[in-house]
Amino acid sequence: MMETRTEAVSPIVVPQVGGSMEDHGFSPCEGGVCAAAGIKAAGVHAGFRKDPNRLDLALVAADEPCVCAATFTTNRFCAAPVQVSRPRAAKGRAKAVILNSGNANAATGDAGIEVALASSKIVAEALGCSDDEILVASTGVIGVQLPLAPYTEGVPMAVSKLAGTAEAAHDAACAVMTTDTHSKEVSVAGELPIGEDGAAVTVHVGGFVKGSGMIQPNMATMLCVLSTDAPLDAEAAHAALLAAVKTTFNHVTVDSDTSTNDSAFLLATGAAGGETITCDSAAYAAIAAAIHGVCESLARMIAADGEGATKLVTVDVVNAASQEDADTAAFAIANSPLVKCAIFGHDANWGRIAAAAGKCGVQFDQYACDIDLMGVPVLRSGLPLPMDEDEMLRRFEEPAIDIVMSLGAGSFCSRVWTCDLTHEYVTINGDYRT
Amino acid sequence: MMETRTEAVSPIVVPQVGGSMEDHGFSPCEGGVCAAAGIKAAGVHAGFRKDPNRLDLALVAADEPCVCAATFTTNRFCAAPVQVSRPRAAKGRAKAVILNSGNANAATGDAGIEVALASSKIVAEALGCSDDEILVASTGVIGVQLPLAPYTEGVPMAVSKLAGTAEAAHDAACAVMTTDTHSKEVSVAGELPIGEDGAAVTVHVGGFVKGSGMIQPNMATMLCVLSTDAPLDAEAAHAALLAAVKTTFNHVTVDSDTSTNDSAFLLATGAAGGETITCDSAAYAAIAAAIHGVCESLARMIAADGEGATKLVTVDVVNAASQEDADTAAFAIANSPLVKCAIFGHDANWGRIAAAAGKCGVQFDQYACDIDLMGVPVLRSGLPLPMDEDEMLRRFEEPAIDIVMSLGAGSFCSRVWTCDLTHEYVTINGDYRT
Repeated sequence: MMETRTEAVSPIVVPQVGGSMEDHGFSPCEGGVCAAAGIKAAGVHAGFRKDPNRLDLALVAADEPCVCAATFTTNRFCAAPVQVSRPRAAKGRAKAVILNSGNANAATGDAGIEVALASSKIVAEALGCSDDEILVASTGVIGVQLPLAPYTEGVPMAVSKLAGTAEAAHDAACAVMTTDTHSKEVSVAGELPIGEDGAAVTVHVGGFVKGSGMIQPNMATMLCVLSTDAPLDAEAAHAALLAAVKTTFNHVTVDSDTSTNDSAFLLATGAAGGETITCDSAAYAAIAAAIHGVCESLARMIAADGEGATKLVTVDVVNAASQEDADTAAFAIANSPLVKCAIFGHDANWGRIAAAAGKCGVQFDQYACDIDLMGVPVLRSGLPLPMDEDEMLRRFEEPAIDIVMSLGAGSFCSRVWTCDLTHEYVTINGDYRT
Repeated sequence: MMETRTEAVSPIVVPQVGGSMEDHGFSPCEGGVCAAAGIKAAGVHAGFRKDPNRLDLALVAADEPCVCAATFTTNRFCAAPVQVSRPRAAKGRAKAVILNSGNANAATGDAGIEVALASSKIVAEALGCSDDEILVASTGVIGVQLPLAPYTEGVPMAVSKLAGTAEAAHDAACAVMTTDTHSKEVSVAGELPIGEDGAAVTVHVGGFVKGSGMIQPNMATMLCVLSTDAPLDAEAAHAALLAAVKTTFNHVTVDSDTSTNDSAFLLATGAAGGETITCDSAAYAAIAAAIHGVCESLARMIAADGEGATKLVTVDVVNAASQEDADTAAFAIANSPLVKCAIFGHDANWGRIAAAAGKCGVQFDQYACDIDLMGVPVLRSGLPLPMDEDEMLRRFEEPAIDIVMSLGAGSFCSRVWTCDLTHEYVTINGDYRT
C-alpha cells in the first residue's frame, strides 16, 4: 500500500439531491414574507423588551383565513406557545401568526399557557377571526412569566401597521431577532402551469427566520414564518414544509442544542389564483422545490450567523451505507468542537474530521475513506495526501468552508450546515448575566 | 399548579452504585503504577519529540509475563498500535507495555503497522520475552510515519532504568503526556482474605493515565496503564477492567471527540501471593472495586485537566426510564456547549440543562423534572424555584461543580464527568499549527 499519493487526484463528487429551485425556474424577488399576495406583516415595539427602539412583536396575517402548515421542536421541554400552536396548526387553517421576542414563555406552567391563549384572543379580536386561527410563537428568556400587557397595547398597533410591503416584512423579521446580528429574509418568484388550459401563473414564496440567538438566561430558538400565494391544499402545504424542514433547518447545527421553542409556519393564501395544488399535482414538485430553496437559504443564513461565527461551514458526507449513517456522520463532523476550532484557526486538520466520523458508530472501513477540504483532496483511501499549506491558508480566507467526506460504504449522502467555534461564542454564552 | 415554590426543598438523592473502594477497605498508597509488586517502570527521552528535556517513551514491565487485560477505542479510524495490541491483549498474557508520545502512528497504513511490530520486537529482545507479550500504544501527531530509530536508542535506555519506585512510575506517567498540564497517577492498597485459611493478603492497584491532550495536527488520546499484584486470573482481570472502564473512562467527555488511539491496559502480576481470584471468588468484588476506584480517580483527573478547563463538572442523571436514557441524557448535558459555557461564566443557567436533556430523545415529562445545581434545588416539577444569585456565585468559586437532574421517569441513573468550555479551549484547538 502506498503511504502518500502524488498523482493528480480528483475531488469527491457530491450528488445533487432532487431538482433545485432554479431548475424549476424560481429566482429571487423582493418582498420577504410579504412577497406572497394576500399576506401582510408588521413589527412593533410592544414592551417585551426594555429598549423602546427595539421591535419585539411581529404579526404576519393573511387577508383571509388560509391553508397553513407547521413543524415544532421535538424538545421534551416544550414552551407554552408550542403547546398552544401545535393542535391549531394541525387543523390546516390559520389567519395569522403572532410572535414576540424578549420572553420565551417556557417553563412557565399553566400560567404560561393561559397567557399564550389570551394573547391569541387579543389578536383574533383585532383581526376579526376565531382564536384558533391564530398561531403563536415566542423567543427569549425562559422561566419568567410572559406579561399580557404588551399585547393589549402592541397588537392594535401592529394591526394598524399591517402592510404588504418589503418594509413591513422587514420590521416583522427584525422584531423576532435576539442575538442575530442581522434579519434573515428570502423571497422567490416563479411560474407554475396552473392557470386555465395550463397557462402560467406567477407564484411567490417568502419568509423570515430568526436564530441561533440567545439572551441570558436563555436558549437558542429558531422561529420561521413562510408564506406563499400558490394555491396549495393543506396536505400539500404540510408535505412540502415538512420535506423542506427535514433537510434544511433540521440540518443546521450551531452548538447541537435544540431549543424549547423552535417553530416553522407556512401560510398559503392561494391569492395567486390557479387550480389547487395537491401532492399529486404536476406543479407540486416545482412549488416544493421553491419552498425547499427558501428554507435552504434561510438555513444557511442561520449557520453563517451562528453565535460568534466567522465562517459558514458546509459538511457533505457521501457514499454512506444508509441515510441514517450519512446524517449521523455529517452531524458528528459538524458538531465536533475540535473540527470547529480548527476551522476558526485556519488549520487544515483533516485528522479531526476523520476522527469525528470514526467515533459515531457508522459503518465504514478507514481504508475506503476520502476527504476533501475546501475543494482540495487531503485524504484518499485512508491515507494522507501531500498538502500545500500556503494554498490551504489562502482558501481559508473565504467566508464559506466546504468539507466533503466519502465513506466508501454505499450510496447515501447528507449535507449539514454549521459554523466555526470561536472565542466570541464562549464570550456570548459564558458571560455572567448582568 | 404552582408557578414557584418557596418552602424548603430537599436536594435530589443520587443513588450509590455498587460498593465503593473505601467500603472494601482500600485506601491511597504511594507508588503509582509501581505500587503493585512485580511491576517496574521507566520514562526516557528517546527522540520522538525535539525537546531533549521532554520524556517521550514509557515502559511498564512485569518481572515475569503475567495476566493482562485491555480495552481499546471504538473509533473506526483506529491507529496502528491499537491494531497490533488488540489481538495480543486478547490472549490474556503480557510482559510489558511500551508507550510513546509525540506521534500517534495513526493513518499511517501498512508502514505504520510494520513500525509498531518492529518496536515491540526491540522491546521483546531487550526484555528477553516473545514479541507478542509486548503491548504497544502511541499518542501524538497523526498522519506522519512513526520513526523506528528512537526505539533503537530509547528502549535499551528505558530497560536499564526500569525500577519499582514511585519516581520511575512518575517518569513513565510523564513520558505519555501531551497537552496534559500535569501527570495523572493513582495507587491504592487494601487487604483481601486470599491467604492460607483466609488470612489477609495486602494487594495494590496503581496506574497512570494521559488525556485529554492534543498537539497539532492531532486528536485527543487517552492512554492508561494499570497494574495490580493481586492474583487475578485472565477472565477476572478482563471483567474487572471492562466493568471499571465502562463507568469511568467511558463516562468522561471533554469535547465529545473519541480518539483513534484510546487504550487502557491492566497488568496483574499476582506477586502479592494468595489464591487465584476468579470472577466467582469472594475477593472479586473487593479487587474490582479497587480497580474501579483507581479508574474513577484517574477519570476525574482527565476531566478536571480537560483542555482549557477551569472546573471539573460532575453530571448525575437519576430516575431515568432506562440505563440508555440515563446515559444519553447525562452525556447530552455534559456535551452541551451552552451548559459548559454557562459554567465557565458562573451563570446558574438551569434552562440550558433542561434543554439539553429535553433534546436528546429520552423519555420523560417536563413537569416531572427536578434539577439541582451545586447542591441548590433550582427546578422542581418543571418549574423554577427562586434562586439566591449571590449564593450561586459563591458556590461557583469551588473547583468542582455538580449538576443533578431527576427525570422522574424510572429508577436508572448515570454519572458523567466533564469540564467547562473556555476561551482557552478555543485557543488551544484553534491556533494555527506553527
